[in-house]
Amino acid sequence: MAGPVSPLAPAAFPALPEIAGVRFASLAAGVRYANRTDVMLAELAAGSAVAGVFTRSSTRSAPVRDCEAKIGAGTSRAAFLVNSGNSNAFTGAAGERSVAEICAAVARATGIDEGRVFTSSTGVIGEPLPHERIVAKLDALNAALDPSGLEGAARAIMTTDTFPKGAAETVTIDGREVKIAGIAKGSGMIAPDMATMLVYIFTDARHDQPRLQGLLREITDRTFNCITVDSDTSTSDTLLMAATGASGVDATGNDDFAAGLERVMLDLAHQVVRDGEGATKFVEIRVTGAASETDARKVAMATANSPLVKTAIAGEDPNWGRVVMAVGKSGAEADRDRLSIRFGDILVAENGWVSPSYSEEKAAAYMKGQEIVIAVDLGLGAGEAVAWTCDLTHRYIDINADYRS
Amino acid sequence: MAGPVSPLAPAAFPALPEIAGVRFASLAAGVRYANRTDVMLAELAAGSAVAGVFTRSSTRSAPVRDCEAKIGAGTSRAAFLVNSGNSNAFTGAAGERSVAEICAAVARATGIDEGRVFTSSTGVIGEPLPHERIVAKLDALNAALDPSGLEGAARAIMTTDTFPKGAAETVTIDGREVKIAGIAKGSGMIAPDMATMLVYIFTDARHDQPRLQGLLREITDRTFNCITVDSDTSTSDTLLMAATGASGVDATGNDDFAAGLERVMLDLAHQVVRDGEGATKFVEIRVTGAASETDARKVAMATANSPLVKTAIAGEDPNWGRVVMAVGKSGAEADRDRLSIRFGDILVAENGWVSPSYSEEKAAAYMKGQEIVIAVDLGLGAGEAVAWTCDLTHRYIDINADYRS
Repeated sequence: MAGPVSPLAPAAFPALPEIAGVRFASLAAGVRYANRTDVMLAELAAGSAVAGVFTRSSTRSAPVRDCEAKIGAGTSRAAFLVNSGNSNAFTGAAGERSVAEICAAVARATGIDEGRVFTSSTGVIGEPLPHERIVAKLDALNAALDPSGLEGAARAIMTTDTFPKGAAETVTIDGREVKIAGIAKGSGMIAPDMATMLVYIFTDARHDQPRLQGLLREITDRTFNCITVDSDTSTSDTLLMAATGASGVDATGNDDFAAGLERVMLDLAHQVVRDGEGATKFVEIRVTGAASETDARKVAMATANSPLVKTAIAGEDPNWGRVVMAVGKSGAEADRDRLSIRFGDILVAENGWVSPSYSEEKAAAYMKGQEIVIAVDLGLGAGEAVAWTCDLTHRYIDINADYRS
Repeated sequence: MAGPVSPLAPAAFPALPEIAGVRFASLAAGVRYANRTDVMLAELAAGSAVAGVFTRSSTRSAPVRDCEAKIGAGTSRAAFLVNSGNSNAFTGAAGERSVAEICAAVARATGIDEGRVFTSSTGVIGEPLPHERIVAKLDALNAALDPSGLEGAARAIMTTDTFPKGAAETVTIDGREVKIAGIAKGSGMIAPDMATMLVYIFTDARHDQPRLQGLLREITDRTFNCITVDSDTSTSDTLLMAATGASGVDATGNDDFAAGLERVMLDLAHQVVRDGEGATKFVEIRVTGAASETDARKVAMATANSPLVKTAIAGEDPNWGRVVMAVGKSGAEADRDRLSIRFGDILVAENGWVSPSYSEEKAAAYMKGQEIVIAVDLGLGAGEAVAWTCDLTHRYIDINADYRS
């Protein structure tokens, strides 16, 4: 199933700093894959605040439900345990038992309270998770814990991602440095799975837990919730963040910290789009002039999700008529005669029609690039939004119309 | 651009009855295409009530806006004038002038009041409609009007439809027959057009106009608004219906008439899906047991629009995990443990997991058929809905990622 690396992949995996207060281990447990790591453990020192944002799917998986129940204000030692190969989603009561077995085993191996063990699973759905294979590896995982293991963890959580995803920032607070580093997986596919996104972010800053939870949710709305590959929502999407406090620097309420965290999250979100199934172009949809921010977001997401817009981009066709269509169907207030559309710097349409200055030749040349910006100004108000997506290509069909096995 | 006829096309165009009070003509005006008819005129006798349902797109085309303004209670003579090849959408003030020029020319040629001339245009968007080519043909169209011209009209309104679409019913009211006949076009594509749907329905029954308008809207919600090919909404979607009254039989409030009309509309709606771009399978999504009808509809449309569900069907993969995903993302109330999923008669999932009786082999055999029924019962209430869609194949990408020209 492993395809070629996405043409939009970064040149190399970034150098991620060690984060004081976290150790990582990853191993091959044979959950589904052969010859690769598929389980990772992160151990968080005492003092760590843990926050999380999860899929809103009403059929979300057993591990997601368990994490949701555990997120809270405690700061005792904690652990993240993630497996790939099986998502433990739609597995009935057996799914909940698997989560409980894994949490108990992590607790036994590490001495961490079960209530502070957060698990995620990604991969095939509807098949019982062979949790005993994970349980059997926990002593080895615990023995292998190492502060430098974050890149290995990024690789262990991949499903059909074509590259591992990581990002990091250093922020100075009152003259002292704190570090933020994160990893992600998505939008790879293991049929019959869907494009699950998992994200884990770590910082050595200290942070109030309820405010970290609020910050994470707010930034998620501007980053991970602004990307789309195919409009389908996973039953397993999970973002977990730990602030270990090991640096001794409190980042609660610090704007530079929030900005650094947002850069890490946006970088990871963009990498997920760059690994979108079959993607050959990275597309930014910028909407301005909407009657409200909600309207701007509707237009941005309607455009980013439109199969007709996405296939036109795959065909390198500056097909602005399809952008007009997407604006029209979005449900946002729009006025044909105030709308303007740009492809990159090229003004395509204004005053209800194609611009007199428009050159199809220039626009077609622009569409041959790998990074496409489509800007829509609605001319009505101050509402703005951005969405990121990729093109819709034959390879998306290849990947997703392939029979599972 | 003309591809092979859809494998889901009916064996033949149906025999459509003449409808007393309507005459049709179609001709080649050379709007965009060569060697084919591209303009049709329908002349409605005095006494005709006209009703219409239109796209809700905020960027809807000039002819749509003109029709919306004209729909009303009058019953004087009327005309429908439709061209293919150019949609006159997003053409600024010039688009409105083109509509006015065409309406004036129809009025001159036929003696029908301009306020009773309803026009539609379908095809390329953003290019000025060469209305003079249509205007030049109006005397010839008027001279060619003939009660038997409905099939010709069905052909003249095609864009890249792979087959013309027609349907008819006869209904007996108080021992007297009335006839209903309709034609449609969609979801063919002329880049940079979108999958515009145009529908024209005629009956010789008499019908109160405001109640016909209400009936048409109500049935549209159960037919045309329950189909989807790619979730994109056209700027030009138009459904016009004329009740000429020439039979002398009043159908206002008659349930048999409403049922006959619904059969015609459902038949045409299904034909549009059967001509969906790249379609190789006709898919019915049946939702029952939802907490409300609104919720049932959300689940049906979320499933019918899901690229992951549609690519799985293209791959003949009974990938019920993707149906669970679509239920979860729909926004409808759902409970994993009450959900059941059937592919045809095969119970796939129940009680939060795959059914003990499920046979992957049987389900895979079922998916090889051309007509697929996916039934989802939410186990919560009495809400029901049905949606119809097609699979998502390489040919959809071929058609839509092709550069215009």
